[in-house]
Amino acid sequence: MEEKKRETNEFTIEGRNAVIEAFRAGKPIDRVYILDGCQDGPVLTIKRQARKQNVQIKYVPKERLDQMSETGKHQGVIACAAAYEYAEIEDMFRLAAKRGEPPFLILLDNIEDPHNLGAIIRTANLAGAHGVIIPKNRAAGLTATVAKTSAGALNYTPVAKVTNLTATIEELKGRGLWFVCADMNGTRMYDLNLTGAIGLVIGNEGEGVGRLVKEKCDMAAAIPMQGDIDSLNASVAAGVLAYEIVRQRLG
Amino acid sequence: MEEKKRETNEFTIEGRNAVIEAFRAGKPIDRVYILDGCQDGPVLTIKRQARKQNVQIKYVPKERLDQMSETGKHQGVIACAAAYEYAEIEDMFRLAAKRGEPPFLILLDNIEDPHNLGAIIRTANLAGAHGVIIPKNRAAGLTATVAKTSAGALNYTPVAKVTNLTATIEELKGRGLWFVCADMNGTRMYDLNLTGAIGLVIGNEGEGVGRLVKEKCDMAAAIPMQGDIDSLNASVAAGVLAYEIVRQRLG
Repeated sequence: MEEKKRETNEFTIEGRNAVIEAFRAGKPIDRVYILDGCQDGPVLTIKRQARKQNVQIKYVPKERLDQMSETGKHQGVIACAAAYEYAEIEDMFRLAAKRGEPPFLILLDNIEDPHNLGAIIRTANLAGAHGVIIPKNRAAGLTATVAKTSAGALNYTPVAKVTNLTATIEELKGRGLWFVCADMNGTRMYDLNLTGAIGLVIGNEGEGVGRLVKEKCDMAAAIPMQGDIDSLNASVAAGVLAYEIVRQRLG
Repeated sequence: MEEKKRETNEFTIEGRNAVIEAFRAGKPIDRVYILDGCQDGPVLTIKRQARKQNVQIKYVPKERLDQMSETGKHQGVIACAAAYEYAEIEDMFRLAAKRGEPPFLILLDNIEDPHNLGAIIRTANLAGAHGVIIPKNRAAGLTATVAKTSAGALNYTPVAKVTNLTATIEELKGRGLWFVCADMNGTRMYDLNLTGAIGLVIGNEGEGVGRLVKEKCDMAAAIPMQGDIDSLNASVAAGVLAYEIVRQRLG
């Protein structure tokens, strides 16, 4: 319980003024919890800011807020802020240019488990990817658990949050990237050409890559599976595919 | 807390007779907690059984037992039983023979995180390995978390527990296996011949493969690393190496 408290403490902002201030300062807020039915001026300001910055609002009963609260003075509002600043996609292109390499990005279609997200950022760093792109909603954000699981990689590998993954893929195609998604019904990964500027798309734990995202991809790569069960753990699949790209790049 | 209680409940056996009975029935017991200083007949029987079956004994104060106890009637003895039965190495050879494949085993040198163990069993299943071998002491055993993280693979892929990993490697070498360990100072994995009967040794999260185990291995395989941090997550590293073996086997 001590452990949990410490973690929560680092990433919640409690009380109306503190939350309004955090929005004004541009802190990376992931979610705002608001007391169900609360409608006064400051709360309306918070709701407006949250919508403007595309931050998820959750309406919860008082008991839930009391439970989350560390200070005991939440005044009906608790915001969860990301521990780390998100990067821009531009940072990834700069990193690739600096290293004189064709861009290699990893895009995550709604990875929900922060341990998986952290492990994938760690893999991205070691496989030489120039950045990780995650969607704004529903997916895991950059929390303390992610930072810890990334084993420090979060300090080096840029992670960007985008509103719409398919729009981002479209845009990046215009900049010369080819996209390959993980798909067990795809072509065996060894038989694809994965060299050059590339975006690797990994699906979420339960459903894989979403249909709309998959349709945007140029290639679908299958990891050969010989076993009795359905699929690899998402971070293991990301590792195996990322390293097939590394192998082909090393030529 | 509810969650934790439920899990514990499934895997502890409390009270002298219950624990003696569990030993007699051959249940896969991982550890026995005994009240420090307890020396009566039934407790001595339990100690004898534990030593005979190479089960770890921990002597703990009454408070610790009270805390672990679900029934409130531990009588000074609580045993932790594995959720799943361990297999024998023979089962792995049988599986390989049945599939007409050279044996492919994965050996874990003290993986401590049950999520990593589960993910590796899952990978072993899908990469077509015939079994996973773990050491008896200190390492994670087959618990509910492992079963869950393995996504069902634990029902298909044999997992054996051995007393001494180096002795097992020696024995398996006599049966024609070659051993390769994960080692960042080793040869680039693409440059090794990983076909044929093989044992892949993965080290623990913090220290990698132990020196004695490493010395027993025929080859040391390095995953190419380009990043700023030290090492991949253990289950990702296992996945990348296992799939290099798959790639070479598919040839």
